[in-house]
Amino acid sequence: VKYPLPLSKLIGWLQKLPGVGFKTAERFAFDLLSWPSTELAALHTALAEIQQIIEPCPVCGSLKEKQTLQKCFGCDAEGRDGRLLCVVASPRDVYALEETRSFRGLYHVLGSLVSPLEETIPPPEAIDTLLLRLTLSPVAEVILAFDSTLEGDATALYVHDFLKQRPLKVSRIAFGIPLGSHFQFVDGGTLARALLGRHHM
Amino acid sequence: VKYPLPLSKLIGWLQKLPGVGFKTAERFAFDLLSWPSTELAALHTALAEIQQIIEPCPVCGSLKEKQTLQKCFGCDAEGRDGRLLCVVASPRDVYALEETRSFRGLYHVLGSLVSPLEETIPPPEAIDTLLLRLTLSPVAEVILAFDSTLEGDATALYVHDFLKQRPLKVSRIAFGIPLGSHFQFVDGGTLARALLGRHHM
Repeated sequence: VKYPLPLSKLIGWLQKLPGVGFKTAERFAFDLLSWPSTELAALHTALAEIQQIIEPCPVCGSLKEKQTLQKCFGCDAEGRDGRLLCVVASPRDVYALEETRSFRGLYHVLGSLVSPLEETIPPPEAIDTLLLRLTLSPVAEVILAFDSTLEGDATALYVHDFLKQRPLKVSRIAFGIPLGSHFQFVDGGTLARALLGRHHM
Repeated sequence: VKYPLPLSKLIGWLQKLPGVGFKTAERFAFDLLSWPSTELAALHTALAEIQQIIEPCPVCGSLKEKQTLQKCFGCDAEGRDGRLLCVVASPRDVYALEETRSFRGLYHVLGSLVSPLEETIPPPEAIDTLLLRLTLSPVAEVILAFDSTLEGDATALYVHDFLKQRPLKVSRIAFGIPLGSHFQFVDGGTLARALLGRHHM
């Protein structure tokens, strides 16, 4: 017995969400079926609005609302340190770094990481805009804040290649054991990187 | 720093999905932001269609498509055993039982279980329709197929109360150790129920 077509379709689309397999998509779809129509309509509107109202900031690639803001918060130089620029993969990373309250510089969003396996690179426009920003503004240090994965490493090398001719400091965020972790649960690779990055006390 | 309003709203609605907390909703929302607009539009349409095209079957409460079918597949008596009727909580359970290919009787969907904690009962119409069906048709055995939880037990007692005056056999699906399970991983409650339900070989 097959599900009614609209339900199968919905399950198919929900499976495209990260970490959602067929069983979870099924569970979501049946749950959505039981939502009051006002709530379903609200979700429906919210889905439409993310593309209608949110757009990438033309300067840094982070998120901004179409009409309400001239600049996105990360490009609003007011109170920010224009000598530091942090390059990240996605808009979400910008919010994660802001949350830490320990960075007050500028951001630049690449859109994606280099994937050596899938042979993909970040959109060239993102690199072009980065180089233009560096030419036009007084940035002294570029911080690369990528995942500590194969893709993150490849992206750091890729971006560094574009920057190495310029009079800039290029740094990458530290690898090491995460805060609050027990020694025995930290994997060998992380320990090795943490040893290499040891600092004097 | 707060997310743009449409994004916050979407995260809020996604958190209503079962098992989805703030972090997962955030992950889904950022993923949706990066979907090509054609795919987002398709998800959008699928969401609208589940309420436009699917409706509860007026007889059994399972799902049917509005125009294409007169009866839902479970009520289409063709090839089905009209003497057996299986009562379940949700339309999803109907599909799970059909999948087993070991039941060819009729179904009746209650819509929800009795919740002794939240003091809720299934919609009264679902019970009324069940009783009407039993009066009008030659059902000889009603099988209660609910969760093996407090709510499932309460619902079995609740439905049984309506049926006990009628010349019907009322049964409940068996509790026991699930197939392929190792003894040591089965909890005590399940083992106790499995012992009680032991059968001669």
